[in-house]
Amino acid sequence: MNRLGRQTIVFKNKPRVVGSYTVVGPKEGRGNFAKFFDKILEDDLFGEKSYEAAESKMLKFAITEAIKNANIDKTQIDALFAGDLMNQIISSSFAARKLEIPYFGLFGACSTMAESLIMGSCYVDGGFARYAACATGSHFSSAEKQFRYPLELGTQRPPTSQWTVTGTGCTILGNDDSAGIFVECATIGKVVDWDVTDANNMGAAMAPAAMSTLKAHFEDTGRTADDYDLILTGDLGKLGSEILMDLMEYNGYKLGSNYNDCGQMIFNNTQKTFMGGSGCGCGASILNSYVYSRMNKGMLKNVLFIATGALMSTLSSQQGNSIPAIAHAVSIKFGGK
Amino acid sequence: MNRLGRQTIVFKNKPRVVGSYTVVGPKEGRGNFAKFFDKILEDDLFGEKSYEAAESKMLKFAITEAIKNANIDKTQIDALFAGDLMNQIISSSFAARKLEIPYFGLFGACSTMAESLIMGSCYVDGGFARYAACATGSHFSSAEKQFRYPLELGTQRPPTSQWTVTGTGCTILGNDDSAGIFVECATIGKVVDWDVTDANNMGAAMAPAAMSTLKAHFEDTGRTADDYDLILTGDLGKLGSEILMDLMEYNGYKLGSNYNDCGQMIFNNTQKTFMGGSGCGCGASILNSYVYSRMNKGMLKNVLFIATGALMSTLSSQQGNSIPAIAHAVSIKFGGK
Repeated sequence: MNRLGRQTIVFKNKPRVVGSYTVVGPKEGRGNFAKFFDKILEDDLFGEKSYEAAESKMLKFAITEAIKNANIDKTQIDALFAGDLMNQIISSSFAARKLEIPYFGLFGACSTMAESLIMGSCYVDGGFARYAACATGSHFSSAEKQFRYPLELGTQRPPTSQWTVTGTGCTILGNDDSAGIFVECATIGKVVDWDVTDANNMGAAMAPAAMSTLKAHFEDTGRTADDYDLILTGDLGKLGSEILMDLMEYNGYKLGSNYNDCGQMIFNNTQKTFMGGSGCGCGASILNSYVYSRMNKGMLKNVLFIATGALMSTLSSQQGNSIPAIAHAVSIKFGGK
Repeated sequence: MNRLGRQTIVFKNKPRVVGSYTVVGPKEGRGNFAKFFDKILEDDLFGEKSYEAAESKMLKFAITEAIKNANIDKTQIDALFAGDLMNQIISSSFAARKLEIPYFGLFGACSTMAESLIMGSCYVDGGFARYAACATGSHFSSAEKQFRYPLELGTQRPPTSQWTVTGTGCTILGNDDSAGIFVECATIGKVVDWDVTDANNMGAAMAPAAMSTLKAHFEDTGRTADDYDLILTGDLGKLGSEILMDLMEYNGYKLGSNYNDCGQMIFNNTQKTFMGGSGCGCGASILNSYVYSRMNKGMLKNVLFIATGALMSTLSSQQGNSIPAIAHAVSIKFGGK
């Protein structure tokens, strides 16, 4: 069995990251990672008539360019694993329409970049695909409209809120030994619900899920935080990251300066995003640009990427339910086979 | 590589169907398959205060009972693959809350039973799990409310419409040689869009996707319809099935009396469902009851299950988009290793 403990799976054939691409919106392009993103849009409508159409176009663009970046043809991509935040993941499904690639739709909310990487790795590792594309994205305007208020209303944002990142990222996985980065193992999350009901405090809702998965990862593998150059959560934001550090310390694991969070990192302090970025596109755009770039330059060798997702809908919140959350962890390494 | 052609993957370790369970609503319990379903609810609220909560409870119940049916403990289930029709698949995610099983959320609309079986089979076949649970479901009342009109409005249904099945099904897969039924191979669908825009004619929107996948299956495997005792689509309904038969004949493949559709079969003619049943729960409840039961009795040996999904949302339809669709085919066999 390619397993360690209850929640961790090991990829014995080491699926390689053979290509990647990111597209982000203008606000993200003024943030801390501008120089790493592949494409920064001048207008977040990307030439489309709706934010939803723009989100879908961004996804399709990122997938298409990632395939080019991998220097392969799209007919060599045997599966596309993708998902997003929109109801019925229309951004992904509509993006897949003209791609002519066998398609698996996923929903893991903001954990989708990790979920797609894990499913893609299983698929490549098991010999079901030569190459697999793993993609996700989010769009500030489509997400605000769907989950919160019409943008035109100019609703005041609470101090615990995060700013949904307009961004998409795609990783191409394959069994190409010449690529240095590979997916080593992954810890699959369970759904965790600590009765947080405030949809404007996602970091607090998701931190217990991140703790659960990180703890399981350390227990299953026998590792500690010191075994990684970088432990990177997807979009807990400033408050959520602090809660995670507290929860981990309570469990006997200290997260030090090698821990960071994409939501906390992506915007700068003048951008008025309060707790930072969120959305599937937050972790996806940082992983597929900054992280892979740093790994390819040898500046990072062992990265644990933990994308976290809040699994509620507007309806579940309106009906008074708490917010279930999930986190999946992916160990990504640079080095020989 | 465990592949045949462009879209078909082969499971060399033959993941076995070691358990299954179905829960359906009262209307389904008065239909043609009453004697096969494991549990028929007297009240489709299932003791809950909302249809959404009932749908989630049905899913959790089916998963829990399928695990019992497999005669294993839930700690032996290494992954749950589940999805549903609700926005942000809340039925599945909320069902997973107390299960303590590593969870992958999927969205394939009504193709989800096939998608979950395929992902579960990859996972078991690749040695990532001892056992995997594959589940989906739908609920008439939650789906009508979300996708169409409030039930209280008593809106007249168009003649091409289908009736969303209140039903859930769960299959437990594992590498247990004593089980007779196994998943042999699968053909993964591409997203197909033939510009159908009528959300009250899902059969017509999904038939081209079923054709695309079935044709790819025959081309990849070199098989014809005669190689199966039963070719069973998920929920094309009466009109969609006829369109599929026409499309296949046009492509040189004749679907004869060994072809049927779960949507067409599930209700009887007095039940006023027009084109028949639909929803994730339609194919899921027929596959996990009638089909497995007939296979275990030796009455069916080679079944090709093709679940079809319409990948639109209310918003994508309101914005004037057509309905993209997808179909995944799973070859399920009875016999030795």
